[in-house]
Amino acid sequence: MSDHSIALPAPFEEFSELLTLLPDGDEAAVQSVRTRDASLTKPPGSLGKLEELVEFLARWQGTGTPTLASPMVAIFAGNHGVAGQGVSAFPAEVTAQMVENFTNGGAAISQICALHEFNLRVFELALELPTGDITEQPAMDEQTCAATIAYGMEAIAGSPDLLCIGEMGIGNTTIAAAVCAALFGGVGADWVGRGTGVDDAGLNKKASAVDKALRRHQGELNHPLKIMASLGGRELAGMLGAIIAARHRKIPVIIDGFVATAAAAIAFAVNPRALDHCIFAHMSAENAHKRALDVMGKTALLDLGMRLGEGSGAALAAVMVKTALHLHQNMATFEEAVVAGKTR
Amino acid sequence: MSDHSIALPAPFEEFSELLTLLPDGDEAAVQSVRTRDASLTKPPGSLGKLEELVEFLARWQGTGTPTLASPMVAIFAGNHGVAGQGVSAFPAEVTAQMVENFTNGGAAISQICALHEFNLRVFELALELPTGDITEQPAMDEQTCAATIAYGMEAIAGSPDLLCIGEMGIGNTTIAAAVCAALFGGVGADWVGRGTGVDDAGLNKKASAVDKALRRHQGELNHPLKIMASLGGRELAGMLGAIIAARHRKIPVIIDGFVATAAAAIAFAVNPRALDHCIFAHMSAENAHKRALDVMGKTALLDLGMRLGEGSGAALAAVMVKTALHLHQNMATFEEAVVAGKTR
Repeated sequence: MSDHSIALPAPFEEFSELLTLLPDGDEAAVQSVRTRDASLTKPPGSLGKLEELVEFLARWQGTGTPTLASPMVAIFAGNHGVAGQGVSAFPAEVTAQMVENFTNGGAAISQICALHEFNLRVFELALELPTGDITEQPAMDEQTCAATIAYGMEAIAGSPDLLCIGEMGIGNTTIAAAVCAALFGGVGADWVGRGTGVDDAGLNKKASAVDKALRRHQGELNHPLKIMASLGGRELAGMLGAIIAARHRKIPVIIDGFVATAAAAIAFAVNPRALDHCIFAHMSAENAHKRALDVMGKTALLDLGMRLGEGSGAALAAVMVKTALHLHQNMATFEEAVVAGKTR
Repeated sequence: MSDHSIALPAPFEEFSELLTLLPDGDEAAVQSVRTRDASLTKPPGSLGKLEELVEFLARWQGTGTPTLASPMVAIFAGNHGVAGQGVSAFPAEVTAQMVENFTNGGAAISQICALHEFNLRVFELALELPTGDITEQPAMDEQTCAATIAYGMEAIAGSPDLLCIGEMGIGNTTIAAAVCAALFGGVGADWVGRGTGVDDAGLNKKASAVDKALRRHQGELNHPLKIMASLGGRELAGMLGAIIAARHRKIPVIIDGFVATAAAAIAFAVNPRALDHCIFAHMSAENAHKRALDVMGKTALLDLGMRLGEGSGAALAAVMVKTALHLHQNMATFEEAVVAGKTR
């Protein structure tokens, strides 16, 4: 964890404050949901985490009658100078090509959203301007980083009632590894994985790139927001902004995989309660995701061996949330169905 | 495991034969699915278990272009003499009341099926005639057991392309515990759990009932099908029949929770390959479910802390299968989307 007593660069002060003065969840709304749940024709507690998901919606939407009228998957896309170090199995132009694929309906996330009726928005973050190669220079200057966080906050303008956070960016599992190492300790090898599928040589390049970046920026890693600027990426900054804004606008959040978790971890490192309005969708097959969740004391809803990104795991978790709320709203009560209750 | 060299009662010979002469999966169909999967716009393997689910459909439907045009949830409902021993938190009349609730759309499974467009069929198995109290007499005579297995086989008459197996029956976690103990060893306390929510006294009653039943029938437990007759229940026999028939009719199966797993375990004990066409939907919160899956070397797709039965976990797993197939059928290929492939 970082020393928060240091003087923060001016562009970051607003976000630091927003991460400190956090609204709490609505426990009265949760109680209201629990009262209805107890009346439904099933043994108490028998729907397990599905019941908790409805409580989660109620707590963070701040209502005993939560809705899913406008669930949204937001994909933040960025490019990375470090991609030039051979850290990815795919060439950097794939980021822009996949952004087009999201919009044209050809990507996995497009089709999950089509099937389950989620809105999909893609936030394309200056793909023609990759961030600096973190092994040699800062990813972003402080102004750019702050502006991108602010842009991410705007992303909730349509007032979704559930926000799934995902990303696309060739090279960004290396960026996420660097961010996690800077926040939570350890060396590159502790935090890198095969991403989209690098071979052993690629894996070694990733670990070396992270270690080199940590050395290069060691004087600048004493606050989470400075870590974001030095080692992060535009899509990570955008996701961080969206997470912060959602908390202040009563929008529950589902975090996708390792890269989205690294962005969220910046918020956690400023204030461990900053992610209370978030659930973690799934355990990524990317090695370090479990490590990051463990450090933060978080658990994942699903474990399907996925490692795609683009919000795909978050959207699958949202299917569970949608199903859970549908049951809560539409199941019969013991009284309506004339079913006898517990006897002992 | 049982001694299969014993002379089987005549009514069971047909099922024993059907469990021995099993059709294999279609590996050419799997290969066809893999070829298309490799062309889709995502890193190879990045959809994890979703990819395996499509292969599962292809393998057991026996086609490289699997379908989900008529997925079905089949709930088998039965009543149990052992319910009179105070082994359930709910009175026995709830079985019939819930059957009505399934049909009227008020139950959890009704609403999962409504939201995700699965067919739902309820097989009501002589609810007015509970099976014998296994602590004192056989659950069923051999003819009744065989007839119920045969009836369960008829349940696939509508030719669903995916069959989710679930159940309803007050007292049936005690029955499932007795079946598992007889098949796999151990005492009552190893296999009982809180079911729909019994207190400690109820839990002790369950363990004692299982132990008493195991002693009472010890001479009759030398073949899995005799265990079904002595200790099982109508809904377990029906589920077993459906599982057997599905294998011979190229219908992939999703097994729900602990009670459905106990029915499936009868087939496994006759022939460990008899469940190759089945996936196990979720890890039930009922203690012994993990134990039963571990003994059989099976893993569960989801782990949501559920313990409702009625096919609810199987239906959620079917949502994942439906989503996986939708992606497989509708995602763009690298060629269609003009996305660059792997470079290293």
